[in-house]
Amino acid sequence: MGEIGRSIPRVDAKDKVCGTAKYTEDLCPAYALTAKIYHAAIANGWVERIDIDDALAVPGVEAVFTCMDVPQLPFATAGHPWSTDPGHRDVADRLLLNRRVRCYGDDIAVVVATDEVAADRGLRAIRVEYREEPVAVTPEQAMEMAAQGGEPLHEAYADNILGRSQYQEGEWPADTEELTAAKGSYVCQAVQHCHLESAVSFAWQEGEKITVVSSTQIPHIVRRVVGQALGLPWSRIRVIKPYIGGGFGNKQDVLTEPLNAWLAQKLPGRTVKLCLSREEVFSATRIRHPITIDIETLADQQGNLVARSYNAVSCQGAYASHGHGIAANGMTAFRDMYRQSQALRQQALTVYCNVPAAGAMRGYGIPQETFATEANMDDLALALAMDPLELRRKNMMLPGFKDPVTGITCHSSGLEECLRKGEALIDWQAKRQAYAKQSGPLRRGVGMALFCYKTGVYPLSLETSSARMVLNQDGSAQLHLGATEIGQGGDTVFAQMAAEACGMRTEDIRVVSFQDTDVAPYDSGAYASRQTYVTGMAIQKTARLFGERLTGYAAGLCGMAPENLRVQGQHVVKQEDGQPVISLEELAQEAFYSLENSVHISAQTTNHCRSNTFAFGCSFVEIQVDMPLGQIRVLQAINLHDSGKLINPALAEAQVHGGMSMALGYGLSERMIFHPQSGKLLNGNLLDYKLATALDTPDLQAVFVETQDPTGPFGNKALGEPPALSLAPALRNALLHATGVKINSLPLEPQRLTAAFREAGLLEGGEDHV
Amino acid sequence: MGEIGRSIPRVDAKDKVCGTAKYTEDLCPAYALTAKIYHAAIANGWVERIDIDDALAVPGVEAVFTCMDVPQLPFATAGHPWSTDPGHRDVADRLLLNRRVRCYGDDIAVVVATDEVAADRGLRAIRVEYREEPVAVTPEQAMEMAAQGGEPLHEAYADNILGRSQYQEGEWPADTEELTAAKGSYVCQAVQHCHLESAVSFAWQEGEKITVVSSTQIPHIVRRVVGQALGLPWSRIRVIKPYIGGGFGNKQDVLTEPLNAWLAQKLPGRTVKLCLSREEVFSATRIRHPITIDIETLADQQGNLVARSYNAVSCQGAYASHGHGIAANGMTAFRDMYRQSQALRQQALTVYCNVPAAGAMRGYGIPQETFATEANMDDLALALAMDPLELRRKNMMLPGFKDPVTGITCHSSGLEECLRKGEALIDWQAKRQAYAKQSGPLRRGVGMALFCYKTGVYPLSLETSSARMVLNQDGSAQLHLGATEIGQGGDTVFAQMAAEACGMRTEDIRVVSFQDTDVAPYDSGAYASRQTYVTGMAIQKTARLFGERLTGYAAGLCGMAPENLRVQGQHVVKQEDGQPVISLEELAQEAFYSLENSVHISAQTTNHCRSNTFAFGCSFVEIQVDMPLGQIRVLQAINLHDSGKLINPALAEAQVHGGMSMALGYGLSERMIFHPQSGKLLNGNLLDYKLATALDTPDLQAVFVETQDPTGPFGNKALGEPPALSLAPALRNALLHATGVKINSLPLEPQRLTAAFREAGLLEGGEDHV
Repeated sequence: MGEIGRSIPRVDAKDKVCGTAKYTEDLCPAYALTAKIYHAAIANGWVERIDIDDALAVPGVEAVFTCMDVPQLPFATAGHPWSTDPGHRDVADRLLLNRRVRCYGDDIAVVVATDEVAADRGLRAIRVEYREEPVAVTPEQAMEMAAQGGEPLHEAYADNILGRSQYQEGEWPADTEELTAAKGSYVCQAVQHCHLESAVSFAWQEGEKITVVSSTQIPHIVRRVVGQALGLPWSRIRVIKPYIGGGFGNKQDVLTEPLNAWLAQKLPGRTVKLCLSREEVFSATRIRHPITIDIETLADQQGNLVARSYNAVSCQGAYASHGHGIAANGMTAFRDMYRQSQALRQQALTVYCNVPAAGAMRGYGIPQETFATEANMDDLALALAMDPLELRRKNMMLPGFKDPVTGITCHSSGLEECLRKGEALIDWQAKRQAYAKQSGPLRRGVGMALFCYKTGVYPLSLETSSARMVLNQDGSAQLHLGATEIGQGGDTVFAQMAAEACGMRTEDIRVVSFQDTDVAPYDSGAYASRQTYVTGMAIQKTARLFGERLTGYAAGLCGMAPENLRVQGQHVVKQEDGQPVISLEELAQEAFYSLENSVHISAQTTNHCRSNTFAFGCSFVEIQVDMPLGQIRVLQAINLHDSGKLINPALAEAQVHGGMSMALGYGLSERMIFHPQSGKLLNGNLLDYKLATALDTPDLQAVFVETQDPTGPFGNKALGEPPALSLAPALRNALLHATGVKINSLPLEPQRLTAAFREAGLLEGGEDHV
Repeated sequence: MGEIGRSIPRVDAKDKVCGTAKYTEDLCPAYALTAKIYHAAIANGWVERIDIDDALAVPGVEAVFTCMDVPQLPFATAGHPWSTDPGHRDVADRLLLNRRVRCYGDDIAVVVATDEVAADRGLRAIRVEYREEPVAVTPEQAMEMAAQGGEPLHEAYADNILGRSQYQEGEWPADTEELTAAKGSYVCQAVQHCHLESAVSFAWQEGEKITVVSSTQIPHIVRRVVGQALGLPWSRIRVIKPYIGGGFGNKQDVLTEPLNAWLAQKLPGRTVKLCLSREEVFSATRIRHPITIDIETLADQQGNLVARSYNAVSCQGAYASHGHGIAANGMTAFRDMYRQSQALRQQALTVYCNVPAAGAMRGYGIPQETFATEANMDDLALALAMDPLELRRKNMMLPGFKDPVTGITCHSSGLEECLRKGEALIDWQAKRQAYAKQSGPLRRGVGMALFCYKTGVYPLSLETSSARMVLNQDGSAQLHLGATEIGQGGDTVFAQMAAEACGMRTEDIRVVSFQDTDVAPYDSGAYASRQTYVTGMAIQKTARLFGERLTGYAAGLCGMAPENLRVQGQHVVKQEDGQPVISLEELAQEAFYSLENSVHISAQTTNHCRSNTFAFGCSFVEIQVDMPLGQIRVLQAINLHDSGKLINPALAEAQVHGGMSMALGYGLSERMIFHPQSGKLLNGNLLDYKLATALDTPDLQAVFVETQDPTGPFGNKALGEPPALSLAPALRNALLHATGVKINSLPLEPQRLTAAFREAGLLEGGEDHV
């Protein structure tokens, strides 16, 4: 039918462009109470006493609850599928409000009031006495603190180490004399998702049921976690997800929904709204894991990798959230991206610290791993005096590769072509040569980096999805999913997939974007770049069945054999010649209102996905470095992607632009700064946290190499996260090219650059005063 | 399993008793705009000019729309299933706002403002110039007006007659000398439903979709009618029905939803609320048809009916709504209730008049017909000097009867037993004798009346329903319906039915009471006492399939044959000995989260209902009449019902109490009083309109005779409307017994009684001054 591969406008474009789309807060009823959280003003210790009397006396304050009141039911917040195997469950290490304070900004009390002003006044009237413990803002400090007998953040983890993985293959070469080594310690900072829409929800209890309307990527998982946190049967929880204004993984955690649901339970019949401020989103939701990765690579003189070691220490923050899965994921990607060498040694540690909990963020450990790996590859190329592109071509994963642990296999790869196109577009050879030897205040460089990325979480976790279609009276069809549009264009490609598989037109598919877990088919949600792949399979299966039901009903009406009919556009047509037999509208009117045979045609199926596949891509950049200012100007930035077949090329391009923009901030300017003693976040707002603005952003170029992946429902592979991976290391490598200086810590901000240039003797003058 | 016949508490009891249940207005978002309708201040004529400039200048007024602005797409409002046959569709005779004014209170403009005060001020600032036509508040006046060449209410009906039916059987006896005649003209007044919750909705447009949240009995029909009224594809409309606070047929009309949706369309992105005041509900929604019924009955000396004639003139009011269907339904019941006599002559007319449109109201024409028929039967008994009960026993419908037009057949009847029980409970024989000859100011009487009532609308209209069940992770199940809880306890009996049919416990069935037409299975809604019957069939079919899917999955897990398993309570058990094989919770956890075989178990089916059956019942009352005051005190009131098998006897009893209370008001005190010249409703509020209060209501006794109807899914038959039918005529007949005076007009209010008593010489003194 050709619905796949069409750059149709987003199905929600008009809503969103015209500002008519309803987000969570737009739907909150009048007269809802407002809840505001009281956050800890210490980063480690205990709430000894909490005085709420003054707060309760504030006019308009309806209730105050504290960490002394909450159910003692530890719960996990990570947006993972549940497992029937207790060993595969997320770590349940937090309560609704925490007496044991583990980071500055931890949730310790909540005020519910008739309006925001009263709630704020209530917050200010709360008095808390703490018992403070020493603060550890880095994994090293946290491990040291534990070694010294300090109180661990969580009782069950006496050494503050949440998780640890190791992997080893082959023998490390005894004789390294003929080999070239590249060794580095690559440091990735803490950053925040900065989604446009805050973490916001509202909830109420009716009878025995609690409804939570929330801006979440994972409504069905929120339902489960709320049930667990409140000790209620999961079916007593109903979660509704309206349109959401971005999540990027932060809303793949169950953030404030359990607390909000509990407030609704404590105030039955009242609707309670809980909307975090931007400052709270920074300090009291999730962040991307700061990870320090030590890599050593040995290669022979031809550039063949011989031995590789990888040692990551990941800063988990106060609570487990997605925990060690992030660091472990990076380990796997490091193992996969380049061909097996003689020896591989890997280790990763994830350590609790007194900073906000790190969770999922677009890339799930791979932005950090890719930064380290790709920086190290350029370091190696430099040591070998080899073209970095050449080095990668020689060693990168090829079709047929199978990860020895996960079994994930490379079914298709357009990476070689991505490299070829990127090389040409950036004029690689000429510029590598031209910029080889520069001096003066402005220097240019070109750099690149590449990556591989899995599609979904199989076989590490369950991948399953259901979809449902329902015929409308006008011959259009509802597409009812548990999968979620989170701003990425999901609904549009879901509609295209359904249309393709059942034969209808995309414009006649109405995607239900308002997930209500009471009735929505189960799907674990938007994360892991899984939906076009895993949900796509469920949509395909369902839409085929739906199409068969349409032709089956038409066959009954027309006295023809169903196998001689198919759906094509707005009609059921003859299989042989495409001649219309009946329009879908007529068919629908008959099916709904027939006095002969009324059938409300629908279809629902589950697809249990048992495959995975690698997406690939790379970034090429050209930069100009202002040496005295330490400022990088991006002259050209190109991302090239093999995400298999593109469902909607225009949307794919938009995805890439968004991901590149995030990677740009990650590479150049963003970082969360914690006070080393107090653990307080010093720049938790959009003025002091340097998110790239439109003016900071160069033209972003997205290029696709379409492969037809044999496992993808429509030949497609991951696209959601890949765009955010390779641009930061490409920038770092271009800087190396321009200046010869290796900057191994992100972001590549002016302070860091000028200090490094000075150290390298490239800048004169004294201390940097910035 | 025994889930049927259990008096479990309502599934929504806690919600509603504790006040936590959310109704439409509770869900309306903050910052919604408020719309208020400008109603006509004439009853017949045209809007010549309408000046909204001052209204637009009122601070807070955002928009004013008038009858000059609306789409010229006439639409029908009746809550009937759509028909693919244009000849079977409802009359589309109104616009969103009407320039042609047809009743006092007609909708002619609407103000949208930021708040109610501004909206009210806006209304007051509107200036309208009318061209007035003479007003006809009765069918006689309307027909006369048309005969005199007056402008008809609707162009297409020049004689103001909306509909007309005739039926005739046999030859009217030429020789009536040996026969006894009873002849009367029975007059039923206009009454209003007076549901607790007003007609209220709110709506918004997102992109191309308009969502309307409304207090309606018929969400799927509202969706269609809004689509038709706005000229939009029906799939572009989404209707949500939260809990509703009563409807009684008024909300089986599409009242203000199309106007509200249109306002949302005119103000895209804004949410607009439209909530009618009590006064507006009286004058601008629907009422019960005032019908005058002339009956003549001839019987032989043994009391066998020989010939019957029935002539009804029904006052439709300004718009067609359910129209002639009401009067026609009464004709059918008259034909059915008593055995075929030698001759039957029937005619019914429905006439447009300048009063609010009459629509469906609990009983759908049968309260009027039953009042007339049963009054006439007592008149005949009096003429025959025969016990009225005896007369009815001799002539009433018996099992096997089949209506000659509709083909509806009497499959089961407990009426004889109802009569026997009622006779005993009221001590009929003794009291009929004891009260035969009384004098003095206080007189007592006993009376009775009976009825038959169809179950649903087949074969007059389509009866079809779908249901869906979805397994929850905790082993409970969602029951997803298009059928609606409207306060009657529907959700509870739906849950019991589903439990019975699939083997689960009722308490583990979670009924989704929040219909969202985007995803809810199709069902035409709550009316015609259809849901336990028609929807019940769909639930039974679906739940059986769902149960099979549970055992099928369990069979796969346990390596057993599915046919050897069944669901029992919270387990799948062995068919043979009931031994548990797996709990539903374990099964659900496995089905959701299995790495082997994940299936989200659900089932959806349609049942196209092709049967109907008669429910029966009767009322027995004892009253005391205060002759000088004209006041009736009800000493005992008993309703006896054969509604087949009761799904939930306690809820059935509550239904009967509610229906009796409505019939009591209908019989004794309620009526809408229209000014004969202006057509203005004079008592459109709950102070002047005499709804029976708790203090006016005697103990209400409900008795059931349970039959097992062979066509009912669980042996059940209609119960929703029957309780509202027979009490009013029983009261009239008791009054006849007490005083010998035939009052043939409702209500039996003091003014009417004293006037009649005076006329009959039972009261001395002059004019009545009340």
